[in-house]
Amino acid sequence: MTSQEAPETWITPLTPLSFLRRSADVYPEKVAIVHGAARHTYADFARDAQRLARGLRASGVEAGDRVACLLPNVPEMLIAHFGVPLGGAVLVAVNTRLSSEEVRYILDHSGATVLVVDSTLRAVVDPVADSLETVREVVTLVDPQGPDAGTSTDGATWEDLLARGDGGADLPWEVTDERSTISINYTSGTTGRPKGVQYHHRGAYLNSLGEIVHSYHDPASVYLWTLPMFHCNGWCTPWAITAIGGTHVCLREVRGDAIWALIGEHRVTHLNGAPTVVTTIMNAAEARTLDYALVVTTAGAPPSPTTILEMEKMGFRIVHVYGLTETYGPYTVCQWQEDWRGLEEQERARMQARQGVGMLIAEPVRVVEVLAEEYDPANVQLVDVPADGQTMGEIVMRGNNVMSGYFRDADATAKAFAGGWYHSGDLGVMHTDGYVELRDRAKDVVVSGGENISTVEVEQAVLSHPAVLEAAVVGVPDERWGERPKAFVVLRQGKDAEPGEIIDHVKGAIARYKAPRDVEIVEELPKTSTGKIQKFELRAKEWGDSGTRIRG
Amino acid sequence: MTSQEAPETWITPLTPLSFLRRSADVYPEKVAIVHGAARHTYADFARDAQRLARGLRASGVEAGDRVACLLPNVPEMLIAHFGVPLGGAVLVAVNTRLSSEEVRYILDHSGATVLVVDSTLRAVVDPVADSLETVREVVTLVDPQGPDAGTSTDGATWEDLLARGDGGADLPWEVTDERSTISINYTSGTTGRPKGVQYHHRGAYLNSLGEIVHSYHDPASVYLWTLPMFHCNGWCTPWAITAIGGTHVCLREVRGDAIWALIGEHRVTHLNGAPTVVTTIMNAAEARTLDYALVVTTAGAPPSPTTILEMEKMGFRIVHVYGLTETYGPYTVCQWQEDWRGLEEQERARMQARQGVGMLIAEPVRVVEVLAEEYDPANVQLVDVPADGQTMGEIVMRGNNVMSGYFRDADATAKAFAGGWYHSGDLGVMHTDGYVELRDRAKDVVVSGGENISTVEVEQAVLSHPAVLEAAVVGVPDERWGERPKAFVVLRQGKDAEPGEIIDHVKGAIARYKAPRDVEIVEELPKTSTGKIQKFELRAKEWGDSGTRIRG
Repeated sequence: MTSQEAPETWITPLTPLSFLRRSADVYPEKVAIVHGAARHTYADFARDAQRLARGLRASGVEAGDRVACLLPNVPEMLIAHFGVPLGGAVLVAVNTRLSSEEVRYILDHSGATVLVVDSTLRAVVDPVADSLETVREVVTLVDPQGPDAGTSTDGATWEDLLARGDGGADLPWEVTDERSTISINYTSGTTGRPKGVQYHHRGAYLNSLGEIVHSYHDPASVYLWTLPMFHCNGWCTPWAITAIGGTHVCLREVRGDAIWALIGEHRVTHLNGAPTVVTTIMNAAEARTLDYALVVTTAGAPPSPTTILEMEKMGFRIVHVYGLTETYGPYTVCQWQEDWRGLEEQERARMQARQGVGMLIAEPVRVVEVLAEEYDPANVQLVDVPADGQTMGEIVMRGNNVMSGYFRDADATAKAFAGGWYHSGDLGVMHTDGYVELRDRAKDVVVSGGENISTVEVEQAVLSHPAVLEAAVVGVPDERWGERPKAFVVLRQGKDAEPGEIIDHVKGAIARYKAPRDVEIVEELPKTSTGKIQKFELRAKEWGDSGTRIRG
Repeated sequence: MTSQEAPETWITPLTPLSFLRRSADVYPEKVAIVHGAARHTYADFARDAQRLARGLRASGVEAGDRVACLLPNVPEMLIAHFGVPLGGAVLVAVNTRLSSEEVRYILDHSGATVLVVDSTLRAVVDPVADSLETVREVVTLVDPQGPDAGTSTDGATWEDLLARGDGGADLPWEVTDERSTISINYTSGTTGRPKGVQYHHRGAYLNSLGEIVHSYHDPASVYLWTLPMFHCNGWCTPWAITAIGGTHVCLREVRGDAIWALIGEHRVTHLNGAPTVVTTIMNAAEARTLDYALVVTTAGAPPSPTTILEMEKMGFRIVHVYGLTETYGPYTVCQWQEDWRGLEEQERARMQARQGVGMLIAEPVRVVEVLAEEYDPANVQLVDVPADGQTMGEIVMRGNNVMSGYFRDADATAKAFAGGWYHSGDLGVMHTDGYVELRDRAKDVVVSGGENISTVEVEQAVLSHPAVLEAAVVGVPDERWGERPKAFVVLRQGKDAEPGEIIDHVKGAIARYKAPRDVEIVEELPKTSTGKIQKFELRAKEWGDSGTRIRG
């Protein structure tokens, strides 16, 4: 201790564990979690997190070990978000829509020693259970509110695991190093193997505070779990809602009827989701106009201005954020500007459909041209593109809410951080007002006659046609122009439109050269397990074996 | 870089400087500061902070140097909260109500090299200006909205200082070490010399986020500066309001008429202040009931339940916080509980008058018995008192929003952190619900017949009499009981009450033995420059030279 410094105690390492400790102290009897007919108070929540932490230790889990959970949005998944790190371990929340082989890869790569699996997902795990490299024990959750309630299972149950921790002393809600890893989230791996994105306690803590501020949470928040918790740890929301002392409303399946029933029953104030979730809510038979403002924080793909306006008319308040698995979920927010109120409503919605600016707790987002010879990560220069709303560049980010790296993949980490910033792989523009707008995933740009066409822009124009429910635009080969955009369209129930009508509509909305030459009406669009439209499948179908799928 | 880590860039040191950088990026044209007829946008604010930072450097200020400001709540004081640390220096905001000798002590002790002083406070500085040990330059602010507007001054002006920085490149809104000192705040020094409390960038950043959450700030916040910025850096509010992108409304003098005029003109949404500020607002001739909720965050002394109820009836929403200079201002908040709505209103107000629980970003507050031999700081045990709402102990705190120590006072630092926690010197109880209630400043307990009597409790009972405006209770000598409580009372304008009536009223409200035997009606109570009632003066008068003023 030098003459001017207090003891080490004046710095407390930042960790989301402190959030549950505090809410259990302050709101012990308040309902923390609603799940079907079940209610968990904050005292229950903290007690079960302690039991889980001790149970894992009693099961041989040691500091830094990985504990995997293959669970829907149930209370146990929330408990795991605290109990696993409380036990000193690292949470690996696995996507419930993956195949057995994909799950096996993640379990083996992460080196998980314990797997907690929902009984309904045993069918995914069982085929590979005997050949897992590191998992010593599979623990089954039979959710008393789920379809298997009351049935038995082989091996240890969730309750068995927790019971192993009974009788021990409470563990401290603390960490010694705020940069230690709290969780590993695997990317969906559209190209190549999934990568394990490491989050640290400090980043999770700060991102949670950022979301409280930007999504307008307060202790009266009633948050509906439409966003999967396995997806970027639900954008850190298990920690954020617990921090503010709000109520989590669980949801095993994202269905329109269930969502509307829970909104009505619990007067839900907040939910998060990709635009597909928003579409589900809007188009449910039960959809109605609300008599209060329900905040919907959306990301994953740019919401179309049309969607934003429709949602607002139903009483929803849209908060548009943008990020990736590598950024703890949201990194930017389309921060509202008061003078947008004066804009014509389509124009205003277009402002809101942009990805925006870094969150309060984030560094500024940049859009850069990457100058490199042969893309040597050690020798890369990042040059900001002009803030003209036109020049496309790569969106790059860094700081406390950017991952600490890919688990056991130094090469991918080095490449991702070329030049000292995390490379999103997304292309966008910087507007004159400093707001970033995503123009495309790098691989989805259509280059036609030397002009870059943003498929997002074309999609938004297609979506503004009243008969269109969903749309995806990809580049297809063209003799003359190299590529030209083609739209795949799902129509709204009971609505009808000819391709020619939609093309004319688009030509009336954006530059004519950007309009798709073809519109194909389809029953549904191919999607990944997380609901992203799989454009590569659409492209593959169109390009056949013409050799290249790259810009003409 | 190890195999599992990204480059160093993945950690960004926390600093409030990032708040102004962001708000200037996101809200360049928004009004950041209102001062009389003047308006400063966020772009202006950031530009002037840069000019100040560069101007200080051009004036020879080096990293870690102290820069003192003796200023009322004017825009330049807000600019200094960013510009001084942006220039790498440490801000020393000096109490404007001190005497020349007190100011001299602080300037010399802090080793400030530059002093910025408001023209109206030159009369305080001039008598000692020539004999200051370290100040090389005194810079005078002639506030264009102040009483000296348009007059000239000798030496450099604020504008001269800023102009020295013109033409240079912008400095980065960054620090290399988040634990480096951002400011030093001198205690009011009721006993002995003032001590220099050091705040670091990390603590200021986190405390700001905590206040945004607990005082319900959002980008529409219009914050009226009734709390002096020299007091704990205005509880970090210069940084918090800037972070959220709200509007600061400056105020040179805390007068009821001026406050009500500004509330009306700008539709103020938030203000902070000690109960004396609240009293000023409530009792102004202009006081009226508001048609919206204005959040008043109050601390400094426990507000009486009566005050809380009166304020609520006028439309104010009370957030009660507690802290000290050593804790960046607020450390605890009396977190609202929904089930308090069902309580009888006096009972509810009593719940709200408690100091509460640690803020979201703070560690839990403790109430402890200090076990030590001869109070050796190195050998102290802290034992939590029972959470029974009765047993008094000392309130102790630690963590990110507790000072890093007293500047150049290792002994006082070691003593303050005896046992690893910061000792507030305040006595309180821990209620069964985990809420702390301040019962007294250690030196203000009345021990009568072996029973501890909380002067705060007695004061609240006295204040619940409708004719009473202010009250202070101290222990006075008593032959039989050692001490007994005596109340000094200021009556409300136009109201009357006999001492006997007030005593009877108190006996009806709390245990009879706690009632004051004497009530003295006075014109005004002695107060410190920060508005705290100086009980030691009242005690001194009563105890005369009876030798001891310690509990009988």
